[in-house]
Amino acid sequence: MGKQTIRVGFIGLNPDSKWAATAHIPALRLLESDFEIVGVANRTLKSAQRTARELDLRLAFASPEELISSPDIDLVVVTVKVPHHLELVAAALMAGKHVYCEWPLGKGLDEARELAAMARETASVAVIGTQGRLAAGVEALKALIADGYVGKVLSSSIIASGGNWAGQASAETYYLSDSANGASMQSIALGHTLVAVQHVLGSFSVLDATFGRNFDSVKIIETAEILPKDVPDQVMVQGHMTSGAAISIHYRAGASRGTNFLWEINGTEGDIQVTGDMGYPQIVELSISGGRLDDRALAPLAPRRRRAVGEGLSPAAEAVAEIYKCIATDIRTGSRTAPNFDDGVALHELIARIEDSAAAKTERMG
Amino acid sequence: MGKQTIRVGFIGLNPDSKWAATAHIPALRLLESDFEIVGVANRTLKSAQRTARELDLRLAFASPEELISSPDIDLVVVTVKVPHHLELVAAALMAGKHVYCEWPLGKGLDEARELAAMARETASVAVIGTQGRLAAGVEALKALIADGYVGKVLSSSIIASGGNWAGQASAETYYLSDSANGASMQSIALGHTLVAVQHVLGSFSVLDATFGRNFDSVKIIETAEILPKDVPDQVMVQGHMTSGAAISIHYRAGASRGTNFLWEINGTEGDIQVTGDMGYPQIVELSISGGRLDDRALAPLAPRRRRAVGEGLSPAAEAVAEIYKCIATDIRTGSRTAPNFDDGVALHELIARIEDSAAAKTERMG
Repeated sequence: MGKQTIRVGFIGLNPDSKWAATAHIPALRLLESDFEIVGVANRTLKSAQRTARELDLRLAFASPEELISSPDIDLVVVTVKVPHHLELVAAALMAGKHVYCEWPLGKGLDEARELAAMARETASVAVIGTQGRLAAGVEALKALIADGYVGKVLSSSIIASGGNWAGQASAETYYLSDSANGASMQSIALGHTLVAVQHVLGSFSVLDATFGRNFDSVKIIETAEILPKDVPDQVMVQGHMTSGAAISIHYRAGASRGTNFLWEINGTEGDIQVTGDMGYPQIVELSISGGRLDDRALAPLAPRRRRAVGEGLSPAAEAVAEIYKCIATDIRTGSRTAPNFDDGVALHELIARIEDSAAAKTERMG
Repeated sequence: MGKQTIRVGFIGLNPDSKWAATAHIPALRLLESDFEIVGVANRTLKSAQRTARELDLRLAFASPEELISSPDIDLVVVTVKVPHHLELVAAALMAGKHVYCEWPLGKGLDEARELAAMARETASVAVIGTQGRLAAGVEALKALIADGYVGKVLSSSIIASGGNWAGQASAETYYLSDSANGASMQSIALGHTLVAVQHVLGSFSVLDATFGRNFDSVKIIETAEILPKDVPDQVMVQGHMTSGAAISIHYRAGASRGTNFLWEINGTEGDIQVTGDMGYPQIVELSISGGRLDDRALAPLAPRRRRAVGEGLSPAAEAVAEIYKCIATDIRTGSRTAPNFDDGVALHELIARIEDSAAAKTERMG
């Protein structure tokens, strides 16, 4: 395929949705020589038409199936809730489309493996939205560690907030509270962070997890209705990286008035601290400070200049733009630079290890 | 016993030692209506004489045995290294003296139990130096939590530095590196913090620990000699308190240019953050900030006024002075207000649980 524009169709695009408005749309608008946002399919034609009108898109599809089978679409972007990923992504792959599926890939490891196996049988570029390793702050951090700023890494500690998964939810986000939907704090919030952690510090060797649940019900904000919740609101992971570095991670549901993202890395020659406004290093602006050798304290480290393509974008949109840039390259050259479904399976496997560890502990303790 | 002065004898008191100079001596000087520092026994008579001269003490003993058997001593304060605690404390109890033994009580749980059993057979006041629950900052924190500042506690996270136990040691502190001496990061640094954690948050229900060792040798600063080290330099504990609150603790050997003591407590109605210069809440000045309800961020919480007795003392000395005040009361009234040997055994038991958990994990993982 030459340098023709890649025609993008969204399944699940609401112009009022913060994520679409702040990440995907600005990213694609910036990459207009590579991509055209052609059309959208939502739950109803009316909703799709509204999105198309407000975002000035050519096509509003009556259903996801119509979008997937349309000859006007090259790349299907799936931004609906996790439980619908399997069906929609599978259909898009079967129709020969390229796919960009938001993380998590499936409701669990099995679905992810099914989709990855399917993708391997096609010529499609099948991309998972784990853009954490492409976020500018994470890239800058990785470069510092790789360049030996802290020497050999001895330890790393993360305290973070998940934002959701506490005792309240909107009607729209309540589905996060039901483990059947595969959209837990450990899969979404921790999952994205694990991508960044592994990008910077390498693979996990041993790990051990403890989950906690302070809230077994959720109050729906709009209606004051009380609905059940069976996902954890406390997720703790401790262990070691294959490098030998110790790692401790504590995710808390909701938000703190104090620490919402603190990632410290301590080495033989220096220390680095990364902070942000929420436990989503792939979304928030990351502040990096460090000190080494004779430094007695941390000082802000000059942030690496933003990539040219990302000028003017939020950190969230910039990281998504990086994925789209990779997708354009992968579609045109057959490379595999974007996070792909096999990467998604590996992350699902890591989260399954964490869930199994937490479950085994609960069983051991009776 | 009436309001006569309690005559104190130190075993292991070096006027150059930071701990004696900054904690015990100023504390006792301030409590001069209750205590008189009468004498000292060190490894040699010469050393004891030097201490007695420099601190203006009446008596220098030729040996610990002489001090213990002296009719001029009511309270024996044992501030020598842990491996000598059993013998000296046992001898002091047998001689009918009151005892103040620095933490840890024994080289391990067995020694601690032996000493506690012995103390129960005597009329002696037998005190363990776990002054964390008497530190002004910890007391202030406990009051905030007990008063409901954060509502129901949901989670607590601690990232701290142990100071010692990394790749370097002085000749004097090298003994910390040998597990046979019972002076590990988990027993000393974490141990004192666990006293504060339990004082503020209640008891542990379930816990799980992971240890790590980046350094298996230590460079002696004075001689550049390389000596073996078999204690952990990474100690991670995660679990739950009986209240249901999640708890995650990460102690790293050495010091960070970033976080050296961060203790965050998150509740249904507020958040509190406690910081200090090192992972010793019983020693360092603690800064407490908090926010609740409509507060969007943390703000410094007005520190509780220091207790009158502690005016002018460092936080370390003030907490030790609180122990001595309790000791005076306990000796005079038969109360048990100071941390006693049974408290010491309970803390040894908790640390043994932590060590067993870490060891079991190592075994499970092969």
